Amino acid sequence: MQLVTVGTVAFDRIETPFGKVDKVVGGAATYISLAASFFTDGVGLVSVVGEDFPEETMNEMRRRGIDLKGLEVLKGKESFFWAGRYHYDMNSRDTLETRLNVLLDLDPELPEEYRSAQYLMLGNLDPAVQAKVLEQMSPRPAMVVMDTMNFWMDSALEKLENVIANVDILAINDAEARQLSGEHSLVKAAKKIMAMGPTYLVVKKGEHGALLFSDDRVFFAPALPLEDIVDPTGAGDTFAGGFMGFLARTGDHSFENLKRAIIVGSALASFCCERFGIERLLQIEREDIDRRVQEFIELVDFDIELVAD
Amino acid sequence: MQLVTVGTVAFDRIETPFGKVDKVVGGAATYISLAASFFTDGVGLVSVVGEDFPEETMNEMRRRGIDLKGLEVLKGKESFFWAGRYHYDMNSRDTLETRLNVLLDLDPELPEEYRSAQYLMLGNLDPAVQAKVLEQMSPRPAMVVMDTMNFWMDSALEKLENVIANVDILAINDAEARQLSGEHSLVKAAKKIMAMGPTYLVVKKGEHGALLFSDDRVFFAPALPLEDIVDPTGAGDTFAGGFMGFLARTGDHSFENLKRAIIVGSALASFCCERFGIERLLQIEREDIDRRVQEFIELVDFDIELVAD
Repeated sequence: MQLVTVGTVAFDRIETPFGKVDKVVGGAATYISLAASFFTDGVGLVSVVGEDFPEETMNEMRRRGIDLKGLEVLKGKESFFWAGRYHYDMNSRDTLETRLNVLLDLDPELPEEYRSAQYLMLGNLDPAVQAKVLEQMSPRPAMVVMDTMNFWMDSALEKLENVIANVDILAINDAEARQLSGEHSLVKAAKKIMAMGPTYLVVKKGEHGALLFSDDRVFFAPALPLEDIVDPTGAGDTFAGGFMGFLARTGDHSFENLKRAIIVGSALASFCCERFGIERLLQIEREDIDRRVQEFIELVDFDIELVAD
Repeated sequence: MQLVTVGTVAFDRIETPFGKVDKVVGGAATYISLAASFFTDGVGLVSVVGEDFPEETMNEMRRRGIDLKGLEVLKGKESFFWAGRYHYDMNSRDTLETRLNVLLDLDPELPEEYRSAQYLMLGNLDPAVQAKVLEQMSPRPAMVVMDTMNFWMDSALEKLENVIANVDILAINDAEARQLSGEHSLVKAAKKIMAMGPTYLVVKKGEHGALLFSDDRVFFAPALPLEDIVDPTGAGDTFAGGFMGFLARTGDHSFENLKRAIIVGSALASFCCERFGIERLLQIEREDIDRRVQEFIELVDFDIELVAD
């Protein structure tokens, strides 16, 4: 296995100002593994679902080279369910309902062939579960990326900090970066968070793009302005999956290549927003991603001589 | 005169979560003309102030080549005053107090030598005043850029639309672009707004950067991530002034050069945020702007081969 991810595999009910769906397949690990599968065949998924999870989706994932040996299916139980409603700006949302269901039973035992993967993506989950996955990896992966959310900062900060101390890249949104650091300035927040352990910080800003911080460098990638944003659910996970998949494919962990991975992740995330759930990710091909990367190049391209004269 | 701007010249009281000032010089035309003066000596300012406006500030502006023949000083009256408080995110604010004072008397008669300027910046004001300034220009300027705000969309939409129909570039923020067009998607909003008259739309997104739309092209410039954002007041006007000043200096209205002007405007706006009011703009030199432009180049620079293989 080249890339292992742990995270939710779930059903979502989604309401936006422009439409709604009652029950679509979602979950962080679903988006992460689908996005990564465009770049590598060796994706292993660690999660748990109930008997209600569609066999059709699992087969589609397998067709895309995603290994589901790490996906436990619990008989007689229901999959994790999340319902949310987006505000008019589509960049913020309220959670309407959360049914943990099988998530209460998630206590991952990694299949043997997952444990030596070089790339590990810890999707947003209880940091105790993230730690348990990381501990089972041997040798330690070359690159560990982690997502989390404000809920764990409020309820399990110490455990969370212990995991953060052991990852290479933390990828969270701007509000989370501010909360975790206690700093309003993202530049200062990045310094504090990198001092907690990670070599890099990725700050996801939704429709406002993403920032990559390292020791003394910063890179910004915009989000592509879209004609229609149908549903942002999963865009951050799709971004992370594309980012990880690209790194796994190229095997290059230089800052220059991390920037490329950010652009590839952003391109994939832009597709994700064009339909509800995973629908759009299942429609596109590698060539579509390439065309979109080209749009990113054109979006930010400028050529300026220094202006003093 | 090469560039004429009309807008407020005022006093501001500003509160942010991190500090406050009781009375500093502000106003759209103040920021616009100061920013433009880095690039051209022929800036004419059209506005009105009261007897209370500091002679020292006016002298500083004159030293920077800003012509104040168009700035009326009304004896026995007070300058326009605005007070506002920023939210924690520093990207939104509430108006606490507005004292129009002399602004009620603003009925600009342009000095003869202003009327043939090639560049006109209509700062945010009553669209009737903006129209009156535009009508006095002869021949029509080569480039007219206009700012406005939601207040005029709510209270004087028809007059506003008449001015918008006659400008080359409308430069407003994202919420205003959405309100004016009735479209959530900025891509769709841009199309609708350009159909109202302007050849270009600039969407200012504060700390999230700026977008430039033309017929079928789009360019994105980020805002520079700053260690400390002290006060965003005037950043949008500083952006517009730097944009206009750069265009006036270069005389090149191609899309490629508009992109450069956006970067230069963004660089100037980033300085503006580093201190309250106009303080920082009075400290910097052209060389500082150049260095910051270089930071923008590095911020968005990436080099990617198309990924399909």
